[in-house]
Amino acid sequence: MWGGRFGDGPGAIMQEINASIDFDKRLYREDIRGSKAHAKMLAAQNIITEADRDAILTGLDQVEKEIEAGQMTFDPALEDIHMHVESRLREIAGAAGARLHTGRSRNDQVATDFRLWTRDASDRMIAAYDALLSVILNQAERYADTVMPGFTHLQTAQPVTLGHHLMAYYEMFARDRSRLQDCRARMNECPLGAAALAGTSFPLDRDMTARELGFDRPMANSLDAVSARDFAMELLSAMSIAAVHLSRLADEIVLWATAPFKFITLSDAFSTGSSIMPQKRNPDAAELVRAKVGRIVGAQNGLMIVMKGLPLAYSKDMQEDKEPVFKAVDDFALCLAAMTGMLEDLRPNATAMAAAAGGGFSTATDLADWLVRVLKMPFRDAHHVTGTIVKIAEDRGVDLSDLSLEDMQGVHEAITADIFTVLSVDASVASRTCFGGTAPDNVRKAVHAARKAHK
Amino acid sequence: MWGGRFGDGPGAIMQEINASIDFDKRLYREDIRGSKAHAKMLAAQNIITEADRDAILTGLDQVEKEIEAGQMTFDPALEDIHMHVESRLREIAGAAGARLHTGRSRNDQVATDFRLWTRDASDRMIAAYDALLSVILNQAERYADTVMPGFTHLQTAQPVTLGHHLMAYYEMFARDRSRLQDCRARMNECPLGAAALAGTSFPLDRDMTARELGFDRPMANSLDAVSARDFAMELLSAMSIAAVHLSRLADEIVLWATAPFKFITLSDAFSTGSSIMPQKRNPDAAELVRAKVGRIVGAQNGLMIVMKGLPLAYSKDMQEDKEPVFKAVDDFALCLAAMTGMLEDLRPNATAMAAAAGGGFSTATDLADWLVRVLKMPFRDAHHVTGTIVKIAEDRGVDLSDLSLEDMQGVHEAITADIFTVLSVDASVASRTCFGGTAPDNVRKAVHAARKAHK
Amino acid sequence: MWGGRFGDGPGAIMQEINASIDFDKRLYREDIRGSKAHAKMLAAQNIITEADRDAILTGLDQVEKEIEAGQMTFDPALEDIHMHVESRLREIAGAAGARLHTGRSRNDQVATDFRLWTRDASDRMIAAYDALLSVILNQAERYADTVMPGFTHLQTAQPVTLGHHLMAYYEMFARDRSRLQDCRARMNECPLGAAALAGTSFPLDRDMTARELGFDRPMANSLDAVSARDFAMELLSAMSIAAVHLSRLADEIVLWATAPFKFITLSDAFSTGSSIMPQKRNPDAAELVRAKVGRIVGAQNGLMIVMKGLPLAYSKDMQEDKEPVFKAVDDFALCLAAMTGMLEDLRPNATAMAAAAGGGFSTATDLADWLVRVLKMPFRDAHHVTGTIVKIAEDRGVDLSDLSLEDMQGVHEAITADIFTVLSVDASVASRTCFGGTAPDNVRKAVHAARKAHK
Amino acid sequence: MWGGRFGDGPGAIMQEINASIDFDKRLYREDIRGSKAHAKMLAAQNIITEADRDAILTGLDQVEKEIEAGQMTFDPALEDIHMHVESRLREIAGAAGARLHTGRSRNDQVATDFRLWTRDASDRMIAAYDALLSVILNQAERYADTVMPGFTHLQTAQPVTLGHHLMAYYEMFARDRSRLQDCRARMNECPLGAAALAGTSFPLDRDMTARELGFDRPMANSLDAVSARDFAMELLSAMSIAAVHLSRLADEIVLWATAPFKFITLSDAFSTGSSIMPQKRNPDAAELVRAKVGRIVGAQNGLMIVMKGLPLAYSKDMQEDKEPVFKAVDDFALCLAAMTGMLEDLRPNATAMAAAAGGGFSTATDLADWLVRVLKMPFRDAHHVTGTIVKIAEDRGVDLSDLSLEDMQGVHEAITADIFTVLSVDASVASRTCFGGTAPDNVRKAVHAARKAHK
Repeated sequence: MWGGRFGDGPGAIMQEINASIDFDKRLYREDIRGSKAHAKMLAAQNIITEADRDAILTGLDQVEKEIEAGQMTFDPALEDIHMHVESRLREIAGAAGARLHTGRSRNDQVATDFRLWTRDASDRMIAAYDALLSVILNQAERYADTVMPGFTHLQTAQPVTLGHHLMAYYEMFARDRSRLQDCRARMNECPLGAAALAGTSFPLDRDMTARELGFDRPMANSLDAVSARDFAMELLSAMSIAAVHLSRLADEIVLWATAPFKFITLSDAFSTGSSIMPQKRNPDAAELVRAKVGRIVGAQNGLMIVMKGLPLAYSKDMQEDKEPVFKAVDDFALCLAAMTGMLEDLRPNATAMAAAAGGGFSTATDLADWLVRVLKMPFRDAHHVTGTIVKIAEDRGVDLSDLSLEDMQGVHEAITADIFTVLSVDASVASRTCFGGTAPDNVRKAVHAARKAHK
Repeated sequence: MWGGRFGDGPGAIMQEINASIDFDKRLYREDIRGSKAHAKMLAAQNIITEADRDAILTGLDQVEKEIEAGQMTFDPALEDIHMHVESRLREIAGAAGARLHTGRSRNDQVATDFRLWTRDASDRMIAAYDALLSVILNQAERYADTVMPGFTHLQTAQPVTLGHHLMAYYEMFARDRSRLQDCRARMNECPLGAAALAGTSFPLDRDMTARELGFDRPMANSLDAVSARDFAMELLSAMSIAAVHLSRLADEIVLWATAPFKFITLSDAFSTGSSIMPQKRNPDAAELVRAKVGRIVGAQNGLMIVMKGLPLAYSKDMQEDKEPVFKAVDDFALCLAAMTGMLEDLRPNATAMAAAAGGGFSTATDLADWLVRVLKMPFRDAHHVTGTIVKIAEDRGVDLSDLSLEDMQGVHEAITADIFTVLSVDASVASRTCFGGTAPDNVRKAVHAARKAHK
Repeated sequence: MWGGRFGDGPGAIMQEINASIDFDKRLYREDIRGSKAHAKMLAAQNIITEADRDAILTGLDQVEKEIEAGQMTFDPALEDIHMHVESRLREIAGAAGARLHTGRSRNDQVATDFRLWTRDASDRMIAAYDALLSVILNQAERYADTVMPGFTHLQTAQPVTLGHHLMAYYEMFARDRSRLQDCRARMNECPLGAAALAGTSFPLDRDMTARELGFDRPMANSLDAVSARDFAMELLSAMSIAAVHLSRLADEIVLWATAPFKFITLSDAFSTGSSIMPQKRNPDAAELVRAKVGRIVGAQNGLMIVMKGLPLAYSKDMQEDKEPVFKAVDDFALCLAAMTGMLEDLRPNATAMAAAAGGGFSTATDLADWLVRVLKMPFRDAHHVTGTIVKIAEDRGVDLSDLSLEDMQGVHEAITADIFTVLSVDASVASRTCFGGTAPDNVRKAVHAARKAHK
Repeated sequence: MWGGRFGDGPGAIMQEINASIDFDKRLYREDIRGSKAHAKMLAAQNIITEADRDAILTGLDQVEKEIEAGQMTFDPALEDIHMHVESRLREIAGAAGARLHTGRSRNDQVATDFRLWTRDASDRMIAAYDALLSVILNQAERYADTVMPGFTHLQTAQPVTLGHHLMAYYEMFARDRSRLQDCRARMNECPLGAAALAGTSFPLDRDMTARELGFDRPMANSLDAVSARDFAMELLSAMSIAAVHLSRLADEIVLWATAPFKFITLSDAFSTGSSIMPQKRNPDAAELVRAKVGRIVGAQNGLMIVMKGLPLAYSKDMQEDKEPVFKAVDDFALCLAAMTGMLEDLRPNATAMAAAAGGGFSTATDLADWLVRVLKMPFRDAHHVTGTIVKIAEDRGVDLSDLSLEDMQGVHEAITADIFTVLSVDASVASRTCFGGTAPDNVRKAVHAARKAHK
């Protein structure tokens, strides 16, 4: 009846669905670290002796070494990493090991381990953002004057500079980084001491364990401590939003590397070739960065579904929290590294960008703004006059700057030769000097300000 | 700058993000099976010689044996399972091996492998449903007369039978099974022969390879063949809906096993105990079945995000399709097995169920229906009269059947003693004989009809 | 304390969260249709008199007219459309109206109304697909010979034809349509007669009401009838997958309409302009079709979350089912109509497409295939030789067909002048005659086969 | 061909898919507010005259009044709220009105309007949390001594107090509130002045408009200003996590109100009754709060899908951002109000809670802790001894406190009569005095600390 891999019946099924050791073994460092802090505190509070403490600390060191040396055999019958560590510790340290779990439960233990892991993962990702942001600043500065088309609806709208475009991502990524920081700050409280769910009657010093583990404080409510997984949901949410941002830039890299666009040449390091077409560079890394958002958002969505409608306190459903977070963090960190590498290797084709920037009458807005500024024409009227001039240029198949002053004056007689000073792509970008605009000097100022703020 | 696991820089990052061998090695059987079919067809079409074909077939047998014996070293530099198999084949079979890829590309190859895997996974899940449905029918028949409360808003509403309740899940699960069948039928077309994306000029016999691999027909458009992943999205969707249904029953199992409900005793096989409270049985398996819907829906959601807005034909983004499907199928199959086991072990506490079924004036509807049927009272008026009678019983703290005929007639004088025949829980369920109703005979008929239909 | 719009306190809050009339009023036609069928059956079964039936039918006609004339005042105090219709009916038809609800409950009533609506919505969408598929067939036939680049990784890979490309979407959309049909067939069962949850003791003829409402049969289990919402989840899933497909084509339209690609000119009807740049056409409709997938997938995801872990039978949570389905169906139908219109108006720029198709040494595969076919070179060796030749062409900045026979023979001496017959884009697509390949004749055959199959 | 509501063909389709006025009319106040700030700044910078400014301000006042009086006819042909306001302004204010749009574009305008709306919505939700948290503190204090079972796996584990249980939600909700604050702080930057995408050459004072609109500063990059929607994604994420928390408490309310649990009596204000069972109270509001998480998470998921892979700068896809945010905010605010009301009306059944708290040998942990504390037994050994004692009690069908000292000593001879002091439910909760534990004094301290911190 069971067939296939469940041929052994209920026992095999239960073990497979119930055991978490396959994925939570990844928490062994955090588990040992938490146990050490707990043991030190128990001794400081005279709940265990100093001799027991020392036996525990030495024993845990040995367990850690054995795991890192690949000497631990992981056994689904022992269910999870906590039982593996503790059971080995008891073999090593005897009765002292059996005293470690005083005033503690697997419920607060796993919450502590998982918070330690996600907090430290946050720190790693924040550091990865520092590298990414620094690369963006360098490239934005380098390409502060490199014009390219600014698109709306992917149609050429107005010229911008590549530096300015990159700085838009600087802003997005800096916010993404700050979301990770907020998440990290909010989660950095210690569940240890909540015990199974109700707290404990042992005189634990929860401040001490919190401090020892780098937490800002112990969590204030034992039921919350073992029941809450919003720290994981928030981390997944922050990564999801950040992955959406990465997917936007990745999509642009794929687009810019197409034959029709030719805006950039892909780096060999982050593209793959073809034996039959040795000239070809496929933007595999960019495509995968674009795709990974699916996995990360899926993980976030999945955890929210797991937690929906769960009564307090601990339910086994919550065991489904870790694996998606591990995978999402791995994928996201990989995306950050790949994007940093791709941006560092970015080689723009300035000629193609500039040519595209000048197409589509992209300085029509500059012409309209000139009419408003110089002729004091109401904005909406200036739009109308500009539209008429663009139509003439389009009908003749020429650019705006190829029209004569007479052509212009034929549409509106007050126009003077001064208008030609705003019709070039370079003049256009140079004129956008209002704060936040694409003028090369603005870009350089923004880079300097960012470097200063970040120090 | 790269830090941590990317200390080696771009090469390490690219290899980690690009290589799929870590998860697609799971497709080795399908890959070899597809290659064998392709080789046979190439020979039948005189594109390769019979000698080449035989060398390929023998070589592939050897590769398969090596993989199953754990002798293949998987190397991220070889990227994926296709390259691993082919490169080893070429070592074994030389030039013959180098002819295998004629009229084929990794794009149609991976689409074929993945379709084979998902189709066969669908078949396994359909078979697992057969076991699950069969267990439900047995238990529904056994408990056709066992009364329990039917809830709306989780408030006692009307008595039903456990058999009827289980048959509701029979209906849901049977539809879930039929969704898998529809999905399986729709996906069962062969991409092989689409080559990279444009089809091929070699005179392949695509009907032959399709037939050989158990597909109903070759796919009709080469671009579609390499670009489509709706078969995977549909499988994930079908599993998602089915997992929602499983989560509902799992939630009921958790609820029924609580101390206040005590409707069932959990099986030892699918619950865990506590060393400190040996009487305790925690419904771990049910909780995990309830939770797994998060992972499965998350996988479905994630793949839709990956595919959103992807231009044709193959993009590397699509490499993100396999891992979530593998994981979701594993989890879902596990949930089916666990639910089958839990239902088979189901031990209802008939006394507690019956007591709860009679609470809350649960036969008030029967009283109202009697007024309509016997006294020809309009339905809405009957509701009003019933409400008045219930109020009297509530005020006195008694059940409806504890009221006297005089009490009843005080509310509506035409009421006769016959009304007491409909006020018991057993009478109530026995009276619901209209098709689809909870009467025990209906449940038995439904079980028999289901068994007959399924044969 | 309540502030703002809840200034009136609990009553205002409860009314706003509880009442569904704001959205379920859209079901008035289905509600009245269901009530008519129920009344006819009640009379046929002698549960109500023929006079009552006639009073009900006439009354319901009047209610329908009043609603359509905008004369019904919707009042949150009456909660939902069922109460609005019934309460007005009782004003019109008196006691007869009060008998309508015999053997029925709001639970089976709303399930029936909603199934009717979603079934009929499915029919409308299936019909919309007929229009869309027909337009694709016409355009695929018209552009069967129009070459364009086939992309992998959005890099030029091999030439294909626009007709072939469109036929890939034909295949996807035809599967999308068939998913709607499967969903429609599975959902087409009638909940009416399930009453609140347990079925009824009235001798209803459920086959009669099912038939009257166009259902294939009554639902077999009363608890399932009022508890199941998989029909809505499946419809949302089918639309989600279909919307992903639409988003892919929409993304291509946006891409093809860019200045660098210039593959198509957007229709005025489905693009917007700019007063300042009258030449500009923004692909708004395509962008919105691409975006709508978010709303549809979000609705599907949301309903799964609502249903996750819900115990039987009816819970108020399920009231959250309708609004997202209504919105998703509206959006999806709009996307189908917009896509049909955009495809009908599709004006390819054949020159730009052909030029792009010939770039990037896109016939390198044809060269390799010639080596395999004519020189019997193993595939992998042919790839190597081709790569060397492409490299020469690339270094010289010329196309493959610009190389001399001597150049070719310098790489492999057995090459003959015949090789030049496969190097043009037209020769390439014409050669892909294997079933499913891009050869123009294949495309025409596929169009004819599709037209025939669809009749 | 178009059928149904698109009978008029492409024009009707395009208008329906393209126009946003149906939902963005809700932004009229923000749009007018933004325009006023812009006009004042233009005048301050001498870009328009003071007379023009005054005409604009007066005109905008009039437009606002007309809209609020229901006198504005919304016309899809005018597409969106910006065009409606501006076009009416130009009718009123003539040329002055036509000057308003100087240095501005619909792209920065809509980003500003939407940010203003979401920021102010955040403020409203933060205020709603203040009310909710205050109610929780009051109730937690009131029920600081009310014992109830603490559950793991929904099985009775250890006694806790209702006050402590409520304070767990206080902690969760306080974090939810702080997420809204972080989001609010991060989003509070002004896009105005970014113009279409490139910034502007007009000498705008962006600090002035930012200040005028209550923003902390102008956004630093024009492309980012018009392209970013992470503020909306973050708000939806924060609400999603918060809605998950609400769903957990809502599920508990539904559970506690069941007949078997009877932990609480539902308030009339937030439940519905039944005419036929007047005693019945259905927890409709709680069920709907539990369900709404589906809609909110679905909205969040949908917007991420919309934004996935979108190139800069503005794409029409982004028009899909507003409607889901509006709906999610409405639903979420409603959930907060309903939960506040339900908690305020909470009437626990202390007797039923206490009885359930004492079941299932819920003080077994206290017994084990006594063995550790008093007899210095290693924790794991104490668990084993306790398990043996529990087994005896279970076999006899009595509680732990019903065992004699001899029974206890039969298991471990060193046990003294002191052990009985820890076996009662009240003693158990009173003993959990370690920080964060469920002891009534702890709960009172936590309430006071929270009140103090919040002032």
